[in-house]
Amino acid sequence: MTDSFSFRLIATDGASRRGEVVTPHGTVQTPAFMPVGTQATVKGLTVEQVRGTGAEILLGNTYHLMLRPGAERIAALGGLHTFMNWPRPILTDSGGFQVMSLSQLRKIDDGGVTFRSHVDGATVELTPERAIEIQTLLGADIAMQLDECIKLPNERAELERAMILSLKWAERCKRAFEGSPPGRALFGIVQGGDDGALRAQSARGLADIGFPGYAIGGLAVGEPQETMLRVVADTAPQLPADRPRYLMGVGTPDDLLEAVARGMDMFDCVMPTRNGRHGHAFTRFGALNLKNARHADDPRPLDPECPHPAARTYSRAYLHHLVRVNEMLGAILLSEMNVAYYQTLMAGMRAAIEQGAFEGFRAATREGWARGDLPPRG
Amino acid sequence: MTDSFSFRLIATDGASRRGEVVTPHGTVQTPAFMPVGTQATVKGLTVEQVRGTGAEILLGNTYHLMLRPGAERIAALGGLHTFMNWPRPILTDSGGFQVMSLSQLRKIDDGGVTFRSHVDGATVELTPERAIEIQTLLGADIAMQLDECIKLPNERAELERAMILSLKWAERCKRAFEGSPPGRALFGIVQGGDDGALRAQSARGLADIGFPGYAIGGLAVGEPQETMLRVVADTAPQLPADRPRYLMGVGTPDDLLEAVARGMDMFDCVMPTRNGRHGHAFTRFGALNLKNARHADDPRPLDPECPHPAARTYSRAYLHHLVRVNEMLGAILLSEMNVAYYQTLMAGMRAAIEQGAFEGFRAATREGWARGDLPPRG
Repeated sequence: MTDSFSFRLIATDGASRRGEVVTPHGTVQTPAFMPVGTQATVKGLTVEQVRGTGAEILLGNTYHLMLRPGAERIAALGGLHTFMNWPRPILTDSGGFQVMSLSQLRKIDDGGVTFRSHVDGATVELTPERAIEIQTLLGADIAMQLDECIKLPNERAELERAMILSLKWAERCKRAFEGSPPGRALFGIVQGGDDGALRAQSARGLADIGFPGYAIGGLAVGEPQETMLRVVADTAPQLPADRPRYLMGVGTPDDLLEAVARGMDMFDCVMPTRNGRHGHAFTRFGALNLKNARHADDPRPLDPECPHPAARTYSRAYLHHLVRVNEMLGAILLSEMNVAYYQTLMAGMRAAIEQGAFEGFRAATREGWARGDLPPRG
Repeated sequence: MTDSFSFRLIATDGASRRGEVVTPHGTVQTPAFMPVGTQATVKGLTVEQVRGTGAEILLGNTYHLMLRPGAERIAALGGLHTFMNWPRPILTDSGGFQVMSLSQLRKIDDGGVTFRSHVDGATVELTPERAIEIQTLLGADIAMQLDECIKLPNERAELERAMILSLKWAERCKRAFEGSPPGRALFGIVQGGDDGALRAQSARGLADIGFPGYAIGGLAVGEPQETMLRVVADTAPQLPADRPRYLMGVGTPDDLLEAVARGMDMFDCVMPTRNGRHGHAFTRFGALNLKNARHADDPRPLDPECPHPAARTYSRAYLHHLVRVNEMLGAILLSEMNVAYYQTLMAGMRAAIEQGAFEGFRAATREGWARGDLPPRG
């Protein structure tokens, strides 16, 4: 336990960075992938299973938790760490993204957003100050500013409006965050869509306000990967090098590899658990659909060389069976193995950057994915 | 590992028995509760979690497994133990019960049953010989004879017909089981509904054929608990004392306590997992419905004195939240804690019988259940 937040850059290799984030609930090695614990649980997994994947930090969703069970309730129960029995670092988003994507939005203006809850239709207001209050009640080690996250493609004027608004909210969030318990950190969020000039303006504006970490938001909202990577490549170098850089809501294993290559440090995405619930596995050999009949008689494990025991233990035939008969255990094991694969990928990137071997790792990883599967049987 | 099946009676206390069943995959302390792994998985739980509850033996369902993924397929994949990664004892039922309850029955005669699969409507035949073949392919340590299990109440003539048929099938199953791999055991099943004379006739007939273990079937099919316990009390003493006695498909914690008091040794039931998935918890203090709003702000664990860590760790408020927002983890944790409670109950009964203190244990256990919950807070 520490009461000061810090980031240390351990090594770089090209644009890729190997670092360490210290929070009140422990240290996170970067590049880091954060499994998503939307409703105070990583879907389908116990905290022991999550920890067993190698995950060091989780993401919690302010929007969901403010509606159910409520931030004040979680605070009264000892905070989110205690509530969900995860004593390690937690980052919470600000709720902005889900307000836009899940709720029936009522009104957005300089003051904040008013929306109808997707749960019970109640009218709820979320201001920059309330977003900070909620995250403080939850006890997040890392809180995020409230921002306005809009879909791509979008008109420049609209991108600019949302970016400027987000910048104003960044300032208000920073003020509201003053006096937070020691060691907690607030990250600013770069907006600006796919417009390089707006992104640059946003990055400069945030750096002027000054945050212990910076996120790139507003990506993975419908744009091609090429667009996302261009924005990341252009924006990352404009962020202070001595602060962690978090790419929000991203992504596929390929997205992670390419975003680390462009200087990003932290990531979150529901993909490993969501795809796991749908019978999809991420592996060294690319993505496999366990529903596919070709797995029905296959005695081989998902990946005999995976560091995670489940991937070496259960046959593909068994996983196929579980998925086909819709057993919970299929979703559980695939979620677990997918999160584990993401963590293995991040650990591989960290080791490669330390050794100045990121390019080789990237090429070898891509080659594995291109293979599509284990070598044929027999 | 052993290649001979055996049962040893360690102690008795009144009618209750403390024993030990030795199978090729390990030893089972009785009285024993077997969690149900219908489709080659105890619903919602990894094998590590199942083992963590203290369970020593699982039940697999022949009916489900013969339809999906198929007995021949499981055999080709190394048998059910390997398939589901459970290296300990497995008992399989014969499929008879599910044929009656789940399928569209086409025809039943002396030869066997023909039914339509509830999965794809295919016509499937199950004979005594095929039931044994399937269970042998699965690799069950303990196989069950095919029987005809009918609902209660029912007419005496119908009860008699099904009992006589089951007795004939017992003989054919025994013959079909000859030459099975060493150490595997086949149990006979007493039928006869709620008719004492028919039950006695069935028990005598089975003992004449001779089995390494005996089950009481055809209970927990709609009759009052009083009826079930009367049949158990009358039937158990008529079964060979040196063989294990298995009460099929039973039951609530109260059923288990009362059936052990009447001389039964083994049990299986979906209740701990099914009720867990519906938000219900079994505890020392009786059953709790975690959906109930009174748990929403309760920081207390389910049971601070439970030997299972989950029951001491997670707050009722957290469990309530998970159940209310329909998160998988709610079903998972409650299933796990319920199976653990069942195992704790069985362990308590075993210790009490050894100490000649079963009556005291029974009274204290009932008193706990009557309390309804932990003492009030504060």
